[in-house]
Amino acid sequence: MVLAKVEEHASFGGTQAVYRHSSTAVGVPMKFSIYLPPQAATRKVPALFYLAGLTCTEETFPIKAGAQRYAAEHGIALISPDTSPRDTGIPWETNSWEFGAGAGFYVDATVAPWNKHFKMYSYVKDELRELALEHFPIDASRIGVFGHSMGGHGALVLALRNPHIYKSVSAFAPIAAPMQCDWGLGAFSGYLGDDRNEWRRYDASELMWTMSSRFPDGILIDQGLDDKFLTEKQLNPEVFEKACETMGQPLTLRRHEGYDHGYFFISTFIADHIAHHARVLNGAAGLN
Amino acid sequence: MVLAKVEEHASFGGTQAVYRHSSTAVGVPMKFSIYLPPQAATRKVPALFYLAGLTCTEETFPIKAGAQRYAAEHGIALISPDTSPRDTGIPWETNSWEFGAGAGFYVDATVAPWNKHFKMYSYVKDELRELALEHFPIDASRIGVFGHSMGGHGALVLALRNPHIYKSVSAFAPIAAPMQCDWGLGAFSGYLGDDRNEWRRYDASELMWTMSSRFPDGILIDQGLDDKFLTEKQLNPEVFEKACETMGQPLTLRRHEGYDHGYFFISTFIADHIAHHARVLNGAAGLN
Repeated sequence: MVLAKVEEHASFGGTQAVYRHSSTAVGVPMKFSIYLPPQAATRKVPALFYLAGLTCTEETFPIKAGAQRYAAEHGIALISPDTSPRDTGIPWETNSWEFGAGAGFYVDATVAPWNKHFKMYSYVKDELRELALEHFPIDASRIGVFGHSMGGHGALVLALRNPHIYKSVSAFAPIAAPMQCDWGLGAFSGYLGDDRNEWRRYDASELMWTMSSRFPDGILIDQGLDDKFLTEKQLNPEVFEKACETMGQPLTLRRHEGYDHGYFFISTFIADHIAHHARVLNGAAGLN
Repeated sequence: MVLAKVEEHASFGGTQAVYRHSSTAVGVPMKFSIYLPPQAATRKVPALFYLAGLTCTEETFPIKAGAQRYAAEHGIALISPDTSPRDTGIPWETNSWEFGAGAGFYVDATVAPWNKHFKMYSYVKDELRELALEHFPIDASRIGVFGHSMGGHGALVLALRNPHIYKSVSAFAPIAAPMQCDWGLGAFSGYLGDDRNEWRRYDASELMWTMSSRFPDGILIDQGLDDKFLTEKQLNPEVFEKACETMGQPLTLRRHEGYDHGYFFISTFIADHIAHHARVLNGAAGLN
């Protein structure tokens, strides 16, 4: 598949780029960003997929998170897709910031008209990963996933359902129990109709109840306590925490006084997340 | 003077905020951002003023540079003003990205209609500094200045003309000889008319020719070699380098292969800049 380079910038000895490509999975052109650390110039490196939250694009994470320094230190590539297909022709695609464009929720929609394009689960899991493996020096056996808010939900779901693909997982302020919050109920009913068995396949807490531990190295979640979406019960980390505890899945859930939902929160703790993934993907020392 | 808090976020144990205030210097409301490191909770800290480049606002630096981690490590506040007055009522204020709104060039305009509002030199040097000292725990005797492109020019000019205020100075890809480039000629003729003696007061290279060394700890400048504005002769660091060399001003001018003019370049080297200022403002070790 052909990749068109949109832009590229030197960053911490590596390169931060944006690419555009036509997508079979979603049926419209898609963009993603990729940071290649200096180590990628001479050998294959592990890769971390970062899934962003509502309203974000493929540029949000590379611009705001300050992750490149740590990716360069640990020798890990960072790949960040857009948060939905765009310009699909669905007329009310941009009517809401919580549904449609910028709000793909990392599911494969089953309900018309969304089921023609809104296939972000398959896009991230298969098409984008295969594209990255084809075009960049990435080690297919050392892939992790993380994300923020809606993207934290996406990361947990992708990892729990595909531990053969994703060896490590973490999240910032994830929508941890989407079937118990307005965001999740709106997205799932809109994209998936009223089949609750289908919903359960995209709810990290529901998934956790049905499986034994899949991530022996643990899952890392950071949550700010001044996060208004925590107060509004959109995130519900305690539901996921309870499921992990019951099912024996090691979880480090850190609650941070004073921190909110935004990228100043993420940038403060991004080093810890990349180190968490590096310990799994690079071995105990984490450095590569 | 009254400050209105626009937003505030926890970041690396400190706080990143934006404030709005009415400005006597420029005659319209202005916004600035400030990062207060954790150390500011218990004592006065040094402060670094960061001046951004064309088209930027007070938010560009805190969002894109990744500076908070290092400011927290060294215990230094970071203050970033907007790049010009806005909504002044001058009808062609927003006609060009190189002049007017977003392009104040850190001069005090003398030509109508700009001379009523475009007084960014005085705003940064006096009003904003005094406001910061009044409202935040900042040590007036430990202030530095740095900036990028147009703001690198502003930082060098402010420091060279006011070494009693600014104890340390550095710049990323500054417009180092504005009287020798299109950006500077356009801005100076527009804001200052055709009095070349007035222009010289805002040209770092011209200023350097007329003074002995004022910064014995040295000036740090980073410049990317894939910077298109370097190629287009808008920056001319070699002119400033020659003036420093002749006049005995210690200068570390680092030229970086592959780096361009943007914030991926800045974020790669921001740690070195804050450490440079910290060595002066905090003493030899730099840590506070």
